Amino acid sequence: MTMPTTYDEFEQLAMRLDMSRGKPSPEQLELSRALLDEAGTAGFLSRDGIDCRNYGHLLGLPEARELGAQLLDVDAAQVVAAGNSSLELMHDALAFAMLYGMPGDAPWSRQGEVAFLCPVPGYDRHFAICEALGIRMIAVPTTQDGPDMDVVDAHVKNDASIKGIWCMPLYSNPSGAIWSNETIERLAALPAAAPDFRLFWDDAYRFHHLTDTLHKTPNIIELCERAGHPDRALVFASLSKVTVAGGGIAFLASSVRNVDWWQRHMGVRTIGPDKLNQLRHVRFLRDREGLERLMAKHRALLRPKFDAVVAAFEALLADLPDVSWNRPEGGYFISLYVPKGYAKRTVALAAEAGLVLTPAGAAYPYGRDDEDAHLRIAPTFPSLDEVKVAARGIALALRRALEETAR
Amino acid sequence: MTMPTTYDEFEQLAMRLDMSRGKPSPEQLELSRALLDEAGTAGFLSRDGIDCRNYGHLLGLPEARELGAQLLDVDAAQVVAAGNSSLELMHDALAFAMLYGMPGDAPWSRQGEVAFLCPVPGYDRHFAICEALGIRMIAVPTTQDGPDMDVVDAHVKNDASIKGIWCMPLYSNPSGAIWSNETIERLAALPAAAPDFRLFWDDAYRFHHLTDTLHKTPNIIELCERAGHPDRALVFASLSKVTVAGGGIAFLASSVRNVDWWQRHMGVRTIGPDKLNQLRHVRFLRDREGLERLMAKHRALLRPKFDAVVAAFEALLADLPDVSWNRPEGGYFISLYVPKGYAKRTVALAAEAGLVLTPAGAAYPYGRDDEDAHLRIAPTFPSLDEVKVAARGIALALRRALEETAR
Repeated sequence: MTMPTTYDEFEQLAMRLDMSRGKPSPEQLELSRALLDEAGTAGFLSRDGIDCRNYGHLLGLPEARELGAQLLDVDAAQVVAAGNSSLELMHDALAFAMLYGMPGDAPWSRQGEVAFLCPVPGYDRHFAICEALGIRMIAVPTTQDGPDMDVVDAHVKNDASIKGIWCMPLYSNPSGAIWSNETIERLAALPAAAPDFRLFWDDAYRFHHLTDTLHKTPNIIELCERAGHPDRALVFASLSKVTVAGGGIAFLASSVRNVDWWQRHMGVRTIGPDKLNQLRHVRFLRDREGLERLMAKHRALLRPKFDAVVAAFEALLADLPDVSWNRPEGGYFISLYVPKGYAKRTVALAAEAGLVLTPAGAAYPYGRDDEDAHLRIAPTFPSLDEVKVAARGIALALRRALEETAR
Repeated sequence: MTMPTTYDEFEQLAMRLDMSRGKPSPEQLELSRALLDEAGTAGFLSRDGIDCRNYGHLLGLPEARELGAQLLDVDAAQVVAAGNSSLELMHDALAFAMLYGMPGDAPWSRQGEVAFLCPVPGYDRHFAICEALGIRMIAVPTTQDGPDMDVVDAHVKNDASIKGIWCMPLYSNPSGAIWSNETIERLAALPAAAPDFRLFWDDAYRFHHLTDTLHKTPNIIELCERAGHPDRALVFASLSKVTVAGGGIAFLASSVRNVDWWQRHMGVRTIGPDKLNQLRHVRFLRDREGLERLMAKHRALLRPKFDAVVAAFEALLADLPDVSWNRPEGGYFISLYVPKGYAKRTVALAAEAGLVLTPAGAAYPYGRDDEDAHLRIAPTFPSLDEVKVAARGIALALRRALEETAR
């Protein structure tokens, strides 16, 4: 493909590309080809002789829970191995909190208005759950070290209606932030007015490094326990972006008390997860080393795409005031910060040229970025050649948006 | 194994058998061996070129929805193909009703006390969902034609707090009842005071015939529509007892309006089901004929077990007053009705001899059978030899219970 140098040239390419979501590419999915090809040889009997075809094992196949424990640095008793999506686990945990309350406390739905802190920019699907459940969202500004902890502290210490905070500690969606040890320690020790205050700890990109530095954040469950809040953290993770996006395993890790709470409520909903898929995953990945070898292959595919976006922005946007972007060290997104009032127009111009981006504002509660200044770029799914063109297209769309008002 | 002729002989056998749940036997699971063995050849590309490994298709893989439509005699647009359990779908439909309300109506959680009619004996897991959600349960007596419709009618016509009724129209768990056309037509046309009144139609045993007469109940969605209540029926079914219990596909079928409602709320919870498993199922079962051929093989394995229970009861209990049982024509259970006050003691005596039965009372709301007179027998999982001994054991435990008080 020719590299466009103006918005008009970009438009003439008549791209048809959807870059709105953080999906793995077909090449990434091929990395787990053996998971599918050898599915017929995995059989159905677990290490412990469990017939994985039948009902049961509500909290997951024991060896899948053990794999999760190894991956998340906790005991297997603290891990639930579930279906194909950690989003489901977050949704259900919040729905259970609304309907039944956290262990020992009243249902949130009977505590009057309840609220969640939402570091921004953040993950739109987190915010969608809160919005659906009627949980008021309070945006909290963030830096590359995580949320502004003085703001968080001021909110939670006197206001018992604030029941939790969304956390993406490593390679945040979409800012790529790596939350600092200090931030994380403060979250664990936070003097929250609500006894049922929770950290919804979405460790989505725990293994999704883009550089050779395999960053690691502190063990939040341990920190909370040490700070006297043993039930504060609910940790979510999944293999969706490790093996296959629609057919992985999701994990919930927390205190044993919270796992018991989960079991009590989830036991009403289901007789157990698909243990056959869990067995296949355990046999394919084997252990943490197996997973890390696989993630290195993902990295080799993804790094050039992220580099291409950053290179295009450097080439085409470096001269513009109030325009910046991050160079993520992991995760699935790049954030592009544009002058106030230009995000929506840039997305619209890209769409007119056939390139669908994440809607402007999506990374903010209720989809409202009051400054209209943030774009989420998702370079993982398209081919490298497409990413090169699309990244230039985004930059050229922004330049065109700025020119329109400068005329 | 020797066939016991007294309770003491049965006790001396020191069985160790759990017959508490309706699980398929290993031999039944073997019938779908090809689903596992050939999993590696099913690939990942759907008929329509969808990469089943990736995210998306919230309502299920199109060809899985089409299979569901064929099985349930509805349009594919009316079907959701989901995860491994219809119980989840029932739970989530009720949870959504509590949190968000049925389409066009207020959340049930904001309508004061709400109630469900529960034909008894019924399925304990239905009742557990209501109990968890705080939905008051009202027991309704049933015959082999279904619930007493005069009782149902009297309840719903003036009481808008009654929001639904649990229905198992074909081979009910645990009575084996086949609801009559008249009952079903009355349910469709019921003059319910609540505009958001719903039939929770658990068609769990739609294909699970035990005789050569393949019974069929009327299409409830169509009947409701004709009666002017197009959104009244939510139909649930699954392949758990067709292929593999822990790794099948579950279906929800309803009006397009209800499917849209489902999509709206489920879209907040997940990005989509495991389409790889759906693809494998479609390729393994192919169509309704494929499923029916498979069910005939289940029938061949199950029929002798049900016959053995009935034969043991006939041999050992025929002389007792106030003792009866049904000879089911399908489904997974036999109900044994004992003299008032003897169900719990019979279960306890069986347990003392090493045979775990479903707890007495489980088939009633809140686990309370005021007459203490019903036992649910689940003969599917054990081997035929075990079933023969166990059935005699149950009969002998009942006889012993009766003797204890006669002394």
